[in-house]
Amino acid sequence: MSKKLKDRLEEIGLLLPPAPKPAGLYRPILIIDNQLYVSGQGPVLENGGLMYGKVGSDLDKEEGKAAARQVGLTMLSTIITHTPEELVIKRVIKVLGMVNATPEFKNHPYVINGFSELFADVFGSENGVGVRSAVGMHLPQNIPVEIEAAFLIEK
Amino acid sequence: MSKKLKDRLEEIGLLLPPAPKPAGLYRPILIIDNQLYVSGQGPVLENGGLMYGKVGSDLDKEEGKAAARQVGLTMLSTIITHTPEELVIKRVIKVLGMVNATPEFKNHPYVINGFSELFADVFGSENGVGVRSAVGMHLPQNIPVEIEAAFLIEK
Amino acid sequence: MSKKLKDRLEEIGLLLPPAPKPAGLYRPILIIDNQLYVSGQGPVLENGGLMYGKVGSDLDKEEGKAAARQVGLTMLSTIITHTPEELVIKRVIKVLGMVNATPEFKNHPYVINGFSELFADVFGSENGVGVRSAVGMHLPQNIPVEIEAAFLIEK
Repeated sequence: MSKKLKDRLEEIGLLLPPAPKPAGLYRPILIIDNQLYVSGQGPVLENGGLMYGKVGSDLDKEEGKAAARQVGLTMLSTIITHTPEELVIKRVIKVLGMVNATPEFKNHPYVINGFSELFADVFGSENGVGVRSAVGMHLPQNIPVEIEAAFLIEK
Repeated sequence: MSKKLKDRLEEIGLLLPPAPKPAGLYRPILIIDNQLYVSGQGPVLENGGLMYGKVGSDLDKEEGKAAARQVGLTMLSTIITHTPEELVIKRVIKVLGMVNATPEFKNHPYVINGFSELFADVFGSENGVGVRSAVGMHLPQNIPVEIEAAFLIEK
Repeated sequence: MSKKLKDRLEEIGLLLPPAPKPAGLYRPILIIDNQLYVSGQGPVLENGGLMYGKVGSDLDKEEGKAAARQVGLTMLSTIITHTPEELVIKRVIKVLGMVNATPEFKNHPYVINGFSELFADVFGSENGVGVRSAVGMHLPQNIPVEIEAAFLIEK
C-alpha cells in the first residue's frame, strides 16, 4: 500500500471502490526496474459491482467519461492495494484507453479524458499526464471502458 | 535458440508448430536492454496452417481458449527460433490478448487464459504470469486470437 | 526538434504535415530513460485536416495503406516538433497499428506496412523495423488508421 499515494488520495478526498480480483490468470500489477505496470482495469463501483454498456448506444459520451473516471478510481484502488508502502509513483508514462463503443462512435478521446483528468488531479498536470491512445473495441462482460497503464516509480 | 527454454519445453513434452514468417514488415522478436518483445502472434498449427473464425459465432469460448493456447505454442516457437542460445527468460512482464470476437461476446479473459495457463506451466506460476489485458477486436485473416507480449530476460 | 532526424527527412525529401494538437488530455511524446514513447497518431494531411473512413468499406486496402503512410508522416512531424535538438533515435522498438476496419477485413498487416515501409526508408531496414501488431478496431473521428510507437534513443 503506497503510503504517499494513499496520503494524496485522502488529501483530495477520493472514495475508492474495492480493488477487483483478477478476472483471469494475470497479476493486477507488476514492478519491473523503475516501472509499475497495471493490468487492464474495468469500472468497479463502490459496492464491488461493475458498470455495463456500450458507449454510443447504451451510454452517451458523458456516461462513458464517467465510466472512464471510475476505471481510474479502480486503478488507484488496485495500485494502493497491491504495492509496497514505500512505493513512490513519479509519473504516468503510458495509457491505453479502450472504449467499448459502437462502430459509429467518434469521441473516444473525450471518454478517456475521464480517466486522464482524474490522474492529472492526483499526480499533477505534469506528472499525471503521459502518452495515450484512446480507441474503440469490444470489452469483457460488456463493460464500457477498460484501461491499462504504465507508471515511472522511484527506485 | 534459447537452450534453457528448449530444454524446459522438452521436459514437459510440448510439441511446437513451425515459427511463422512475419505477415508484414516487422521483426518477430526484438531484445532491448533486459526485455524481449514479441510481435503479435496468431494460432499456427503443426502443419503450418492457421486457425480461423470469430469467437462467439464460429467458435465457442472453449474453442477460443484452445486457439489462445495455440497462440502460446506459436509464440514459444517464435522465441525458440529467433533468440540466441544463451538467452534466459526470467519472467512474463506483459500480455496483450486480442480476441476476434463478436460485439456481444463477454468472456475474453477466459479465452486468453488458454495462453496464460500454458506460460504458467512453462515458466511457473510466479514467473509465467504478468500483467494482462484481454479484449475484443477484429483480426487479420480472421484468426480467432492474436497475442503480443514482453518478457524480462537475464542480462 | 531532433536535428539528426530533420536532416534525414530533408535528405530524402519528405514533406510533413503539421504536428497535430492532442485530441485529449495526453502528451504527444514522452522520453523515459532511453525510450521515446509516441501517443496514438492519426493521418493528418498537409492542410491540417484528417483522412476519414473505414477500411474494407469506405476505403480499400491500398487507400488504407496510404493512410498508414500518412500516419507515419504525422508521427515524424510530431517527433520533430516535440523533441530536443540533440535527440538521436537509434531504432524503432514497437509499433501498435490500429486499423478502423470492417469486421470482415483481413489485410491489416498490408495496411500497416504503409507506416512500416516509411520508417524503414527513414531509419534503414534494420533500425526502422521493430516488433509490431496490426489489428482492427474502431477509431476516433472515423479516421482509418491510428498508430502508437516506442523508439530507442541515444542517452
